[in-house]
Amino acid sequence: MSVDYDLVIIGAGPGGLTAGLYAGRAKMKVLVLEKLAPGGQIIISDWIENYPGFPDGISGFDLGEKMKTHMLNFGAVIETAEVKSVDFSGQEKKIELNDRTITATSVIIASGAAPRSLNIGEEKFVGKGVSFCATCDAPFFKGKTAVAVGGGDTAVQEALYLTKFAEKVYLVHRRDELRATKILQERAFANDKIEFVWDSVVKGVDGFFSVESVTVENVKTGEEKKLSANGCFIWIGVLPNTAFLENSVKMDKAGFIVTDSNMATSVKGVFAVGDARVTPLRQVSTAVGDGAIAAISAEHYIENM
Amino acid sequence: MSVDYDLVIIGAGPGGLTAGLYAGRAKMKVLVLEKLAPGGQIIISDWIENYPGFPDGISGFDLGEKMKTHMLNFGAVIETAEVKSVDFSGQEKKIELNDRTITATSVIIASGAAPRSLNIGEEKFVGKGVSFCATCDAPFFKGKTAVAVGGGDTAVQEALYLTKFAEKVYLVHRRDELRATKILQERAFANDKIEFVWDSVVKGVDGFFSVESVTVENVKTGEEKKLSANGCFIWIGVLPNTAFLENSVKMDKAGFIVTDSNMATSVKGVFAVGDARVTPLRQVSTAVGDGAIAAISAEHYIENM
Repeated sequence: MSVDYDLVIIGAGPGGLTAGLYAGRAKMKVLVLEKLAPGGQIIISDWIENYPGFPDGISGFDLGEKMKTHMLNFGAVIETAEVKSVDFSGQEKKIELNDRTITATSVIIASGAAPRSLNIGEEKFVGKGVSFCATCDAPFFKGKTAVAVGGGDTAVQEALYLTKFAEKVYLVHRRDELRATKILQERAFANDKIEFVWDSVVKGVDGFFSVESVTVENVKTGEEKKLSANGCFIWIGVLPNTAFLENSVKMDKAGFIVTDSNMATSVKGVFAVGDARVTPLRQVSTAVGDGAIAAISAEHYIENM
Repeated sequence: MSVDYDLVIIGAGPGGLTAGLYAGRAKMKVLVLEKLAPGGQIIISDWIENYPGFPDGISGFDLGEKMKTHMLNFGAVIETAEVKSVDFSGQEKKIELNDRTITATSVIIASGAAPRSLNIGEEKFVGKGVSFCATCDAPFFKGKTAVAVGGGDTAVQEALYLTKFAEKVYLVHRRDELRATKILQERAFANDKIEFVWDSVVKGVDGFFSVESVTVENVKTGEEKKLSANGCFIWIGVLPNTAFLENSVKMDKAGFIVTDSNMATSVKGVFAVGDARVTPLRQVSTAVGDGAIAAISAEHYIENM
């Protein structure tokens, strides 16, 4: 079997870059494909406080650059390219790019996920008050007011977490009851920092340098009101970047890739890491752990072929 | 229930320190117990090249210090103390120290593991040619000669990995055949960089600043010989630091703690991370991933009690 690469890694976020570092260090011939910029989602994070080893925090852009340089030092190659489709049916894995098809003995999918957005122009305030992760950003809201959007487990759990820091949290939900589990609902109702804004959707986020207000509309009455707030946390779901895989590996209903603890997918020689897989937590620290495991698993897969 | 801490973390290696960072940041009242020095096993690592984000590498001591400082910044408290025993039978978890018994709502076990040593005085060359991890240290052996000890899957896999860098690898095994799986054996036999030293045990490691030779004894003939080598890789097993737990949580035969993907052990409210648990890879990067997940799991456990 003559293939182009021992390993192709799809995606250059922390998971993909760590897999590339380990695989390069293991002297595998590795290509990392990234459709946007190396670093993945973290490069839009203004400040990352919780990646261990950087006591003063580090900007997402800088951390992405460091991880990229770190990986390149060990010989993995990176290319800006979008994967159009894959064919994992044979022992030789095929990956179709815009300009050519490449082959590999093993593949690590590190294509990430993106929080579902409100599509009301809130994107321009990401890192300036708009956030999709309380675990990441709640500590920046000490003594401040935040609007939280959603009604599921994640939304309520994260809104509760937010109250550890924020002075006040408006929880905006499009229905008149929560979907979250009972115990979380009870805790939210008992928390006097949370004010519920029922039957409502967010229509706009405004501010000069950063978020100053959030406009909500009552879907029953049509009434609009402007909530004075320093931020808006949006928890209306996470979308995995896995559509290009079609049905080539086993996924859950939402499209997240199912793996075992070795990061192996349902297809031999194909692994998945980070936000794109079914995982209890989506953080830089968990992605790097996944990446290391997947690279070693790919190496063992090739050694034992 | 009035307990001393929301969370007690046993062990301050990368897994425990990361759990402490996340839990402190989540405003939990956290105590981290460490019987030796914060950093865990990494502080004896001369140089760590594969923790993502440090492109030039970092000494184990410095990385441990950074992780400790990082955690302390978020409010977790660290204490030098050895855990004598635990009682996880009630909802209130009890941890017996030398001078007192403390109570906690949740516990994360991050007590690590230690490679089984040869007990022939090789300890003084750790970081100076003696290593227990090819994934970590093989790249430092480019063009050099190494002695590898062991005959199981790990030993053979790691010896093969070593040949990607080293010029020559002596594989010393106390029997006249390997225990490793067939395919690994075949690859090792076919690899002309590996010379097998059968029926032999290592009697001594010598050198001035670093390893210069390894003395082996044939257990059948009693004959001793000195192999000229720059290092000695020892893969005769890993021992988890879990004896103090007795039978309080489910472990495998070797004493590694069994967890699910949320790092939950068989006991509600008790979690385990890093080298002490059953895991496919024992690296700084995997321990930090585990630590983040366990802290969030502990927080959810308390929120949902």
